[in-house]
Amino acid sequence: MLDNADHLCVVLVGTRNPLNIGAAARAMSNFGFLRLRLVNPYDVAFREARSAVGPAADLLACAEAYKTVADAVADCTLVVGTTAVRHRELHHPLRRLETGARLIRNKLAVGRVALLFGTEKTGLSNDDLSHCHWLMHIPTREQHISMNLGQAVAVCLYELVRDPKRARVAAKEKKEKRATAREIERISTELLEALHLSGYVNPIAVSSTEERVRRMVRRLDLSSRDAELWLGMLRQMLWKMRTGKSPLEK
Amino acid sequence: MLDNADHLCVVLVGTRNPLNIGAAARAMSNFGFLRLRLVNPYDVAFREARSAVGPAADLLACAEAYKTVADAVADCTLVVGTTAVRHRELHHPLRRLETGARLIRNKLAVGRVALLFGTEKTGLSNDDLSHCHWLMHIPTREQHISMNLGQAVAVCLYELVRDPKRARVAAKEKKEKRATAREIERISTELLEALHLSGYVNPIAVSSTEERVRRMVRRLDLSSRDAELWLGMLRQMLWKMRTGKSPLEK
Repeated sequence: MLDNADHLCVVLVGTRNPLNIGAAARAMSNFGFLRLRLVNPYDVAFREARSAVGPAADLLACAEAYKTVADAVADCTLVVGTTAVRHRELHHPLRRLETGARLIRNKLAVGRVALLFGTEKTGLSNDDLSHCHWLMHIPTREQHISMNLGQAVAVCLYELVRDPKRARVAAKEKKEKRATAREIERISTELLEALHLSGYVNPIAVSSTEERVRRMVRRLDLSSRDAELWLGMLRQMLWKMRTGKSPLEK
Repeated sequence: MLDNADHLCVVLVGTRNPLNIGAAARAMSNFGFLRLRLVNPYDVAFREARSAVGPAADLLACAEAYKTVADAVADCTLVVGTTAVRHRELHHPLRRLETGARLIRNKLAVGRVALLFGTEKTGLSNDDLSHCHWLMHIPTREQHISMNLGQAVAVCLYELVRDPKRARVAAKEKKEKRATAREIERISTELLEALHLSGYVNPIAVSSTEERVRRMVRRLDLSSRDAELWLGMLRQMLWKMRTGKSPLEK
């Protein structure tokens, strides 16, 4: 959960499809942003979305409808528009989501921020954009830049809550404790014993076979726990080969 | 676009809703991952999704259906399952998306990776999970952890393509050229002149008022371009105050 998540207003402008309003609300609920505003939504869409049951129902019930973008963002100190377009004559700075989200997080500490999403077909109009301080785009590929509205909301909000430190953790992630050389050598010994007993090892090529088996066991890069399992299995097989008994006679 | 994006297989297991298959495909197309596999999808759902037109139609036409998870991941060197669950007895390491995505990116350089998404209602079964090397979860809030399938796919793929360097750029983003002290002083002078002319400045408190106005102008942190605009506006207002003429008489 982000500190000051309560300072973010997700503003859907002119949304037509109730499923998209519902999907936006669900993503907001998933990521802990509970303030939804709708500008001029299609009445039917808004009513249908509000009547939906499910985990985001509370959020939808509290959603506020506004007649104009100006009204919806009046109490915000930063207004950011989202756009798929990259080459149209933009009169605003255009930032990639990764960059923009960081600026938004900083602003949330000191005031309210509005994040605007346009209609499904045409996005934000030039008039909508005139209320924005800057614009943000999700890094989609050139051949298919336009995202589904609910998915775009989910991706933007995820970028706001993601924890950059977690990615760095991956590089030096603690691996499970590896088997020691002694444990590996014990496995090699038992396995070789089993191979001898089973007649796998050709007496003429004993040493080369043993070397090959030793290297092979080391390549397994076993964890300490798995080494123990292997040892248990090998010992059981060895017992069988030595005694020829069935387990019940043990 | 990610290098080796072609090495990632998105695997939807037992998806019931054709809209979700379509949404997953759209997000894949947005982020440049074109290899979709379906395990045991509801026939109707798969047919409907494939017959859909739109930007992800090609991708859906090439999607492959499999009977079992084992078949769908057979050629992959890493199999990662997604889950919303965090507290059930997981027999696998569970990683946050930020961490997991980094490990997946590393693996994509050397082999094929499968990313599994379960059914809408129950997610991946224990049997599905037994094919996974480890599991990954999206950092949703405790009160509402379960995401919509299409949105979960979008968020996971976004994390794979996002550029960590871009976020760092934000901190030292190049700002528009700021106004120089000389420009700021010129604005202060013109503004003070206008305030004097308009009778705003109380003769007894001239110097304290002037200081206040100077500080106020500096706090604006104007760009060079905006400073020029302000200067033009002030000069026009000064002209008006001095001459009392209407603009046409100019």
